[in-house]
Amino acid sequence: MDIRLGANQYGKAETRLVRVDRGEDRHEVTDLNVTTTLSGDLAATHLTGDNAGVLPTDTQKNTVYAFARDGVGQIESFASRLARHFVDTTPTIHRARVRIEQYSWERVAHHSFIRNSGTRTTTVTYDGTAATVVSGVDDLVVMNTTGSEFHGFHKDEYTTLKETSDRILATAVRADWRHASADDTDWHESHREATRHLIEAFAGTHSLSLQQTLYAMGEQVLRQRPELAEVRLSLPNKHHFLVDLSPFELDNPGEVFFAADRPYGLIEGTVVRDGAPDAGLAWW
Amino acid sequence: MDIRLGANQYGKAETRLVRVDRGEDRHEVTDLNVTTTLSGDLAATHLTGDNAGVLPTDTQKNTVYAFARDGVGQIESFASRLARHFVDTTPTIHRARVRIEQYSWERVAHHSFIRNSGTRTTTVTYDGTAATVVSGVDDLVVMNTTGSEFHGFHKDEYTTLKETSDRILATAVRADWRHASADDTDWHESHREATRHLIEAFAGTHSLSLQQTLYAMGEQVLRQRPELAEVRLSLPNKHHFLVDLSPFELDNPGEVFFAADRPYGLIEGTVVRDGAPDAGLAWW
Amino acid sequence: MDIRLGANQYGKAETRLVRVDRGEDRHEVTDLNVTTTLSGDLAATHLTGDNAGVLPTDTQKNTVYAFARDGVGQIESFASRLARHFVDTTPTIHRARVRIEQYSWERVAHHSFIRNSGTRTTTVTYDGTAATVVSGVDDLVVMNTTGSEFHGFHKDEYTTLKETSDRILATAVRADWRHASADDTDWHESHREATRHLIEAFAGTHSLSLQQTLYAMGEQVLRQRPELAEVRLSLPNKHHFLVDLSPFELDNPGEVFFAADRPYGLIEGTVVRDGAPDAGLAWW
Amino acid sequence: MDIRLGANQYGKAETRLVRVDRGEDRHEVTDLNVTTTLSGDLAATHLTGDNAGVLPTDTQKNTVYAFARDGVGQIESFASRLARHFVDTTPTIHRARVRIEQYSWERVAHHSFIRNSGTRTTTVTYDGTAATVVSGVDDLVVMNTTGSEFHGFHKDEYTTLKETSDRILATAVRADWRHASADDTDWHESHREATRHLIEAFAGTHSLSLQQTLYAMGEQVLRQRPELAEVRLSLPNKHHFLVDLSPFELDNPGEVFFAADRPYGLIEGTVVRDGAPDAGLAWW
Repeated sequence: MDIRLGANQYGKAETRLVRVDRGEDRHEVTDLNVTTTLSGDLAATHLTGDNAGVLPTDTQKNTVYAFARDGVGQIESFASRLARHFVDTTPTIHRARVRIEQYSWERVAHHSFIRNSGTRTTTVTYDGTAATVVSGVDDLVVMNTTGSEFHGFHKDEYTTLKETSDRILATAVRADWRHASADDTDWHESHREATRHLIEAFAGTHSLSLQQTLYAMGEQVLRQRPELAEVRLSLPNKHHFLVDLSPFELDNPGEVFFAADRPYGLIEGTVVRDGAPDAGLAWW
Repeated sequence: MDIRLGANQYGKAETRLVRVDRGEDRHEVTDLNVTTTLSGDLAATHLTGDNAGVLPTDTQKNTVYAFARDGVGQIESFASRLARHFVDTTPTIHRARVRIEQYSWERVAHHSFIRNSGTRTTTVTYDGTAATVVSGVDDLVVMNTTGSEFHGFHKDEYTTLKETSDRILATAVRADWRHASADDTDWHESHREATRHLIEAFAGTHSLSLQQTLYAMGEQVLRQRPELAEVRLSLPNKHHFLVDLSPFELDNPGEVFFAADRPYGLIEGTVVRDGAPDAGLAWW
Repeated sequence: MDIRLGANQYGKAETRLVRVDRGEDRHEVTDLNVTTTLSGDLAATHLTGDNAGVLPTDTQKNTVYAFARDGVGQIESFASRLARHFVDTTPTIHRARVRIEQYSWERVAHHSFIRNSGTRTTTVTYDGTAATVVSGVDDLVVMNTTGSEFHGFHKDEYTTLKETSDRILATAVRADWRHASADDTDWHESHREATRHLIEAFAGTHSLSLQQTLYAMGEQVLRQRPELAEVRLSLPNKHHFLVDLSPFELDNPGEVFFAADRPYGLIEGTVVRDGAPDAGLAWW
Repeated sequence: MDIRLGANQYGKAETRLVRVDRGEDRHEVTDLNVTTTLSGDLAATHLTGDNAGVLPTDTQKNTVYAFARDGVGQIESFASRLARHFVDTTPTIHRARVRIEQYSWERVAHHSFIRNSGTRTTTVTYDGTAATVVSGVDDLVVMNTTGSEFHGFHKDEYTTLKETSDRILATAVRADWRHASADDTDWHESHREATRHLIEAFAGTHSLSLQQTLYAMGEQVLRQRPELAEVRLSLPNKHHFLVDLSPFELDNPGEVFFAADRPYGLIEGTVVRDGAPDAGLAWW
């Protein structure tokens, strides 16, 4: 046969789960978006429509809700429970990847909450033998109003950009960091501290390029958090252009900016601890 | 002639302005989305393409940026300055409405900020004689995990909804409140306090319907803030359905919920101070 | 009492209904997004949480699905059936507004379809006595690559825009047209023809301003479709800026454009048939 | 040093380019969204902020516009020109990936167009030696109203899904197909035919699972288009649930459906021609 099935996977995307923990005095709320992705011996359903090896995506959704009955706990643990379950109990499934986004709610009263910005994420992959745990943040929007330069860059015939020694640096951070071990730990503290270091490094780095800031962010996280082996960052450069007010006989000493939508720069990079297994792009 | 021009208006939508105030020790950042809408004697451009009375939308954008050079201050004041300018200096323009959304940034260092949830809004309308100032919030997402009932409703042959004495109540508040006077005041404090009362009333009301919560929110704002004459609220009822876990031989005592996207309830209402001029829907 | 309930309404938003008509040889598909909005004697639920007069939004959703069992037909008729039902059978409800968006599917085989651009809309309002039927389109994206000028406009100290005698004119049309009568008719043909005239007028008008094009579009629809009394148009001016290629020693004779997202112009206007009752903004 | 830079890349995302070809009698319009991504010897900017090897993303944008001056032609050719230019003229850049989305416009008059659904895409990667050309479609929304079954699947304790022999099958196709050769050819015809075969296979396959349909789509494209070596498909299963009308004493013989947003199934797979180099996930 000259045409064959290549890499494939399937699952249930974006199962929205809200769990309420009803303490005597006050409630806790956990608000998740769960995506499960399975792969394994799935040739039959592709080639002949024989579904004997297919665990329905509807079942995957049910499993998410049923597992939440016992409590969700930290999302890394919940994702691991799910990933292990799918591989360990479904004969045809040899690999599961569970991605969870957790939305942030801030308490305003015993049973009342206000949704905050910031999304905490995890991606746990399990192949029947070993698990990989990645934690992260998404859509963390930050801005430095000074302390950012960009000059000395390569110029060619299409370069018109002026060099600058003072610009606004604004981005929406997506960061994912891989844990050296998948053993259960205090994922919550690890996440809080890694996030704090990301933000500190963003704020504290006098930047000559967004790449430099990216590396500084990843480096500080790895230096401060020995449990982490690798950090990957995706940083859109959300351009803020100084408005030319000279037609109105006004100067503009770094005060009035136009915030552009598109196009935007996109800076992506990985910072790795030496000696740790280098997963490269594979764990993405 | 048997066909004629009716109501019309035009303007520049979503001018994105970021202003940095560079204090000696630290910066302040103001992040706005400004929409200007003008109306007046504009028949000529519609009927013959004679644009002598049309102030270009590009000019409206320029004006937003040029006015920001002197400082933005509170958005209600900035919107008023703009609205008055367009009407007072353009002979054909008899009414201007300026809508501003302000995004929230929280300081993390002297020149560094993280974007927070929550949008503060204003809509100022000026007709050459009087101004109306409306302030508000948008996309303020709140949730009560208990203290919400819904029963005793009208039932007809298409009603299948079960009555409940304990449900999740979640919504994304859009609220707009009209000030009794357009005279300059401490708009910032008024906004902060009105928002606080909205949230307090949402959290503190034992709810028999989202309508009741809506009214309680508007009433508390008006009771506590004498400078306000009217509050309008638009509250999507973001349904959280208790998942039936009985197929898995599990109970679900108010703990595991599916957060649905669509359809959603939409509850809209106005709360008015007696004696204040009743703008009805007109100020929307 | 010094604080009171003002205007209010409630309903179920965005009920997604797909109906399949299973003909012997081939199927027809109707894909709708239905929003029902009710108002009437609803003070009790706001003031005391007494829901005796509240038809649940869940029931409204059920009604949409149940009514679809008999067939949907044309959306104007379906919206009318729903609006009349809610007012006629619920004692407290005195006004219903039903808004339907219909997505376009093109047949590719007997039971297979491909989704096309373009949304057909209707908004039917019924108050127990009379119905108003509005039909329309949304997100109809059109572009003229020439035949558009903009000059002779009002200039003030903030005007920098160059006059032009040849620009791209691009917009995403939202149009709503009110029928003179709510009596059942061939809504489908009326819609098809009104849409055709809108597009013809957009393409066929040598434009001196987008306002002129707007009026021409409304006028042609009213001239050609006597069953219509009023057309309202909302036309974002999606700016296409000629890119300055002179730094690269290239000219740019109207060929290479940057399509901007924000800000954009927003031109809104109404064209009315004389003698017809002038609903002004009221039917919006 | 114990921490180091890993994989990294950067570029300009979503440069919106519209090109008008002004024929004597009529115009052609090309509407693109271009993303350029470069990688190479970029350690210095990350580690020290030395930007000597960095071609600014602003320059990448300028290059897109400047190259469009000579004409865009087919997007595969345009992407190749850009990718080769960046690698061939920037000493530090060893790999360029250019992704282009092309929006569809249908002519309504000589200089007038209406935007249609459907996005044609290409991703060209060039490493200084060889180029890889991938073409594709995105957001191609299709539906079969019958001819789709799903049964015989694996059942565990969390399975509640009923088996069905007649369901709606709806999806939004993203497909990417890799060309065996990067040599210039009639990309347009190849794209049109590949897309036609995708749709034909979707419509013509009696489906026992969406995976089976996926494979059939990829297989038909490869069988009919010898210039292609591999097809990758990502198919969200947009669930349409039959509404239970029995509470209203109505049956529902496959006619009235609720179209759900989330969660959705997500079926992804690759179909490969044997003997062709198997790029696996690498070309994604």
